[in-house]
Amino acid sequence: MNSGSAITRTSATSQAVSFADRLAAAIQQRRSAVCVGLDPRTASLPPALRPAIADDWAAVAESYRTFCCEIIDAVADLVPVVKPQAAFFEQLGPAGMTALARVIEHAIASGLLVVLDGKRNDIGSTAEAYAAAYLGPASPWRCDSLTVSPYLGDDSLDPFVAACDGTASGIFVLVKTSNPGGGFLQDRVSDGESIYRRVAEWVTRTNQSRLGSSGYGPVGAVVGATYPEQLAELRAAMPGAFILIPGFGAQGGAAADVAAGFDANGGGAIVNNSRNILFAYQRPEFQGSYGPGKWQEAARAATIAMNEELNAVRPAAG
Amino acid sequence: MNSGSAITRTSATSQAVSFADRLAAAIQQRRSAVCVGLDPRTASLPPALRPAIADDWAAVAESYRTFCCEIIDAVADLVPVVKPQAAFFEQLGPAGMTALARVIEHAIASGLLVVLDGKRNDIGSTAEAYAAAYLGPASPWRCDSLTVSPYLGDDSLDPFVAACDGTASGIFVLVKTSNPGGGFLQDRVSDGESIYRRVAEWVTRTNQSRLGSSGYGPVGAVVGATYPEQLAELRAAMPGAFILIPGFGAQGGAAADVAAGFDANGGGAIVNNSRNILFAYQRPEFQGSYGPGKWQEAARAATIAMNEELNAVRPAAG
Repeated sequence: MNSGSAITRTSATSQAVSFADRLAAAIQQRRSAVCVGLDPRTASLPPALRPAIADDWAAVAESYRTFCCEIIDAVADLVPVVKPQAAFFEQLGPAGMTALARVIEHAIASGLLVVLDGKRNDIGSTAEAYAAAYLGPASPWRCDSLTVSPYLGDDSLDPFVAACDGTASGIFVLVKTSNPGGGFLQDRVSDGESIYRRVAEWVTRTNQSRLGSSGYGPVGAVVGATYPEQLAELRAAMPGAFILIPGFGAQGGAAADVAAGFDANGGGAIVNNSRNILFAYQRPEFQGSYGPGKWQEAARAATIAMNEELNAVRPAAG
Repeated sequence: MNSGSAITRTSATSQAVSFADRLAAAIQQRRSAVCVGLDPRTASLPPALRPAIADDWAAVAESYRTFCCEIIDAVADLVPVVKPQAAFFEQLGPAGMTALARVIEHAIASGLLVVLDGKRNDIGSTAEAYAAAYLGPASPWRCDSLTVSPYLGDDSLDPFVAACDGTASGIFVLVKTSNPGGGFLQDRVSDGESIYRRVAEWVTRTNQSRLGSSGYGPVGAVVGATYPEQLAELRAAMPGAFILIPGFGAQGGAAADVAAGFDANGGGAIVNNSRNILFAYQRPEFQGSYGPGKWQEAARAATIAMNEELNAVRPAAG
């Protein structure tokens, strides 16, 4: 653990401080609602970090580790939270998983909260195994929070909630995702209620008896920036849930689109950005000042710019 | 690759033989529709393999590897396929993932097909990364098939299907799961159609242009043994889809419950059993003859018994 970091994991009485309360405090302290998505991609890495052989998994994993850790160093004082995407590390086999563990360690040591984007889900004792893998003080991966998928039903989510009770952990449940095909199941209406609203109601119900001093509970929700109307609807429907908003930047969402995700105090939501921060050195507006040799500085500049964009639409954060 | 194994991965012309055709052939050859689920659990391991310290992850991972590889040795000539459960390996951190890779390697080398139970899902290039991780000839994990979750919608499944096109890989999409809460979303009816039927129709549509000589396509479906009526309904609705049936044994499903999952030739489905095979040495009916020192023999006996039970209800397999 990182006792010197700005984000506390335990209180003075060594009672676990809840994930939501820690996230709320970190957002305030950093004046930032930005979540930096750690989605390394071989083809987009700065030239100096591109492995010579694209399918030398150990070499690629080492590049991913170096890249993500340097991104963390570039943004650690600017944002409350990072979100490593499990898929890109799994793509490299066991070597990738070792790199992922080191990236998470480095993020924690740098005073950041870590949401692992794994969209895990299963039933019964298998769901318990996933929860034990990623959440709670005895977890080997030591994430602060994990994204989970609700297709298997409410009882499949319960073990993840149980892993949050009394610990410093949280989860984010997929509610309304940012992709065009998200509506294929999520928008289906049954008895006057859409599938995504049904999940949202479960989220609200589950948080009800678990709200911390921040007003938020351990069960967050994923709602895409690409559906601003539903974001407003779901902000109102889930007052006790942190919203993790993907789809900003490369996927088309802008600051105005995510404004409705925040509560009256400018809290209650984090907005993820991966590509436009990680690979900012490739963006026309940063290329001139930075270029491939200064990719860390470009990532930092892009984060500062996104903080400003979001703070301009966050109530009470301006 | 395992050129000497009974289950071919490529044809004589080195054209990839489809997953469905390989699975169909293996079921016939082994006269077995049993899928052995590799769900290692510390507390249930035979005493000789139980690690001294339960949270020494490297030691537990080594126990899991040994246990699963010995189970594979005990059943390799009896069944067509094994299904490692990713969660139990992820629970051990990176050491667990290394063990998982070795278990998969050993299963392939033993002539078995491998379905990784990971219930992965994501959108766009992230879904592509999951597909590249687990499917296709260049995958580091080299699974034959992967379970995937459909909550994110049809476009989130497309990259997995693309990874199957022209390769020897397949997927199993969650349709109707075996847990009591599965109906929370899956049974919701919208415009006269349940969510699970909507997913089933996507499965059928997607297989249509991809059927192999077995009559089956690369997109299988997960349908729980605990809902026999829906199993019959879904067998009829998805004629080109292999059905992976969990919920047999420990979860309550019996041979009569899964009978409706097979086609007229006794093919088209595999029935998973994890606990009752892996830990058969603890079952009253095997304890007397085997006991903890002969856990491999107990697993083999339980597999033979399950083959007989299933073959008795499989048309044309009796």
